[in-house]
Amino acid sequence: MLAFMNAEAWEKTLSTATATYWSRSRNTLWVKGETSGNVQRVREIRIDCDRDTVLLKVEQVGGAACHTGHRSCFYQRVGPDGALTVVGTPVFDPREVYKK
Amino acid sequence: MLAFMNAEAWEKTLSTATATYWSRSRNTLWVKGETSGNVQRVREIRIDCDRDTVLLKVEQVGGAACHTGHRSCFYQRVGPDGALTVVGTPVFDPREVYKK
Repeated sequence: MLAFMNAEAWEKTLSTATATYWSRSRNTLWVKGETSGNVQRVREIRIDCDRDTVLLKVEQVGGAACHTGHRSCFYQRVGPDGALTVVGTPVFDPREVYKK
Repeated sequence: MLAFMNAEAWEKTLSTATATYWSRSRNTLWVKGETSGNVQRVREIRIDCDRDTVLLKVEQVGGAACHTGHRSCFYQRVGPDGALTVVGTPVFDPREVYKK
């Protein structure tokens, strides 16, 4: 998955070892998994060559990072003709996890 | 590595199967590896759940994506105290590849 961090999210991620992002739509700190329980325990942190991108290696509680229940948010393959194919099956049912 | 694409870069990536980005600093299309020869041959394209992020699975010619010669741009580990540690060794010498 890809998400945004501001300085506050970065510091909270470091101090709690739990992946914390900044929701630009809700304009608030976002502890990933606080609703579903599927938090991300940070095992290793890398930054890139120009130091503006963070890579978190995590233990994904619940086995899925995506709100759709897929392990990864990148579950749609783009074919040569631009058509999308879903790859893999969801690990959990979002209707159960989010009680919606 | 992480880089930016605009619509033109996306279409060129699809039509050439060679990773093409948009350089926001140079304001121009950027065929990754056009200087070094280390192009990225696209093997698979994924998009994420909200369709605003692209994941390219590539064959990295030359074995390194990073301009520093490292295989990955994410070669710096962040320690608990915030200190950086370089992980791994460069695959190529950037001074030779870029003739600088």
